[in-house]
Amino acid sequence: MFNQRVILSYDGYGFAGFQSQDEDKGRTIQDEVEGALQRLHDGAFVRIEASGRTDQGVHALGQVISFRTPRDWRDSELARALNTKLPKDIRAMASSSAPPEFHARRSAVSKHYRYLLDACDTQHAVRRRYAGHTGFTLDRSAIDAVARLYVGRKDFASLRNAGTDVKTTVRHVIRSEVTWDGVTMIFDVEADGFLRKMVRSMVGGLIEAGRRATTVAALEAALDACDRSRWPKPAAPEGLYLVEVKY
Amino acid sequence: MFNQRVILSYDGYGFAGFQSQDEDKGRTIQDEVEGALQRLHDGAFVRIEASGRTDQGVHALGQVISFRTPRDWRDSELARALNTKLPKDIRAMASSSAPPEFHARRSAVSKHYRYLLDACDTQHAVRRRYAGHTGFTLDRSAIDAVARLYVGRKDFASLRNAGTDVKTTVRHVIRSEVTWDGVTMIFDVEADGFLRKMVRSMVGGLIEAGRRATTVAALEAALDACDRSRWPKPAAPEGLYLVEVKY
Repeated sequence: MFNQRVILSYDGYGFAGFQSQDEDKGRTIQDEVEGALQRLHDGAFVRIEASGRTDQGVHALGQVISFRTPRDWRDSELARALNTKLPKDIRAMASSSAPPEFHARRSAVSKHYRYLLDACDTQHAVRRRYAGHTGFTLDRSAIDAVARLYVGRKDFASLRNAGTDVKTTVRHVIRSEVTWDGVTMIFDVEADGFLRKMVRSMVGGLIEAGRRATTVAALEAALDACDRSRWPKPAAPEGLYLVEVKY
Repeated sequence: MFNQRVILSYDGYGFAGFQSQDEDKGRTIQDEVEGALQRLHDGAFVRIEASGRTDQGVHALGQVISFRTPRDWRDSELARALNTKLPKDIRAMASSSAPPEFHARRSAVSKHYRYLLDACDTQHAVRRRYAGHTGFTLDRSAIDAVARLYVGRKDFASLRNAGTDVKTTVRHVIRSEVTWDGVTMIFDVEADGFLRKMVRSMVGGLIEAGRRATTVAALEAALDACDRSRWPKPAAPEGLYLVEVKY
């Protein structure tokens, strides 16, 4: 068997998230990709592993999956073949053979997410599924201060989705930066891993401080408290992109 | 009666174009906006005028419409009210009262269109409805030379959609510029008016010269010939945005 690695781009709008689930909850990326691989392998089921799940409505520019296949695909040939079987809202951007020990999730060293937020009265119609929106004017220096708060090895228990079960809530954030493109806030964050809804919770903190509904000091205390109930609610999924997974 | 001016943003993907037509051809911007205005005016029909039609799949960031209404809407109040009645893929960005002689089409002095083209092997899934795509690597200096060719008062008969009937095919292009954002070509063009499919035909010329399927000299001759059959085919609609109408 050959180990393969594929980089996926997808439009999260039409999906009930990455992970396979009960059919009546809607399409998933995993089902579509496994279905396409099955059609490429004469009906033989191919199980994929992803770097991590993305939630409903969340996009990917560089999700990474790995899987074993009996066929020795040449580099990039597999991506081209997959794109003939995949729906248009999922694209295989690249493919390559990988060493036998490579595993999309376990081998990942860090992930880079980006969040786009339009801060303006009315959001352009073409942006409604591809960026968050707030009608408030945002205090950029408060936002910068909150972004700096996220950097370092910290317990992010306050920012995790309620009810998820993980071994540790400590994560190492190595980059947390805000830039602006006109009225659009661009938040780039890179860490060795993320808790569920952690990036959207980070953005929730940026927005609440940005519109002066809370202070940087209050958010710092809420982070230190490791108490989900003290943290602002997560931002909407449509602004979130998984940009790159590093190995 | 009061004369009103509204700036519209819309996602062209879900529409059969701007102009009202036979129902079985799909939704139109005009029908949706007139329907929303009718609901705001207790069932009285309000006819709108637009700066111009946009084709199926073409987006707008700053389309302008005008219409007469018996109600004296305060500035911006009408835009807010309209957004409660409009579908999410059309947004009223701003509204204001206009002098009685103002007419969205006849008063327009110039229009600014933008075309986005992703020049890369595989286009990201989130971009499929919001940018054109070419798998070819493009010669940027050839593209710049063709963009310069479009500037000035010229007869653009070679770039108009076949079968359209207009008084003159002469238009004055005052800006025609290409910039790049990574692999994405951004073409900005401003003129006193455009023939049908003229911007997409301009982009067709940029692509053909960019991929060296033709030369700048050959395109110049084709433009001078005023012969549609000698010009490259128009680029796909999904990359095109009506950015602004100037009065």
